[in-house]
Amino acid sequence: MSDSLLSPAEIKQQLAKTPSWQIVNGELTRNFECADFRAALAFVNKVGGLAESAQHHPDIDIRYNKVRFALVTHSAGGLTKKDFDLAARIGS
Amino acid sequence: MSDSLLSPAEIKQQLAKTPSWQIVNGELTRNFECADFRAALAFVNKVGGLAESAQHHPDIDIRYNKVRFALVTHSAGGLTKKDFDLAARIGS
Repeated sequence: MSDSLLSPAEIKQQLAKTPSWQIVNGELTRNFECADFRAALAFVNKVGGLAESAQHHPDIDIRYNKVRFALVTHSAGGLTKKDFDLAARIGS
Repeated sequence: MSDSLLSPAEIKQQLAKTPSWQIVNGELTRNFECADFRAALAFVNKVGGLAESAQHHPDIDIRYNKVRFALVTHSAGGLTKKDFDLAARIGS
């Protein structure tokens, strides 16, 4: 099941496949730097499409040309395969 | 000058014209709740257009259907008329 909480060992395994992401306060996060605000917004729209397809939505913080995504499965109370699957689609 | 720091009295005056906004940690902020993620993203794009026109960009936090904007003029080290002008255009 993609919504089951992952064990610490499973999280470690998944992280090895998404090395650009890191766990901060229990969430799977990644920061991106784009050319400018317009490029950042275009990127957020692209990720928004992936999120809608997955029906799983990261928290998104936009700071001019910088974008931060944070993934966690609130319904499961922690990290699940869904978080790592979407992270990999955003960019592993 | 729209980039001059506003005095406390001027801030009070401006806030009276943008009553839906509040100052939190020195920034002019407002939270919006949209129907869903897709609507939130559409709204962020609309505000992104206003920001590009003004060449002034709020910090933007997206939490599924909730969006938070925070405005401050970093170059001036505080709130200026630019912040209130953009706030009014987003929605007073």
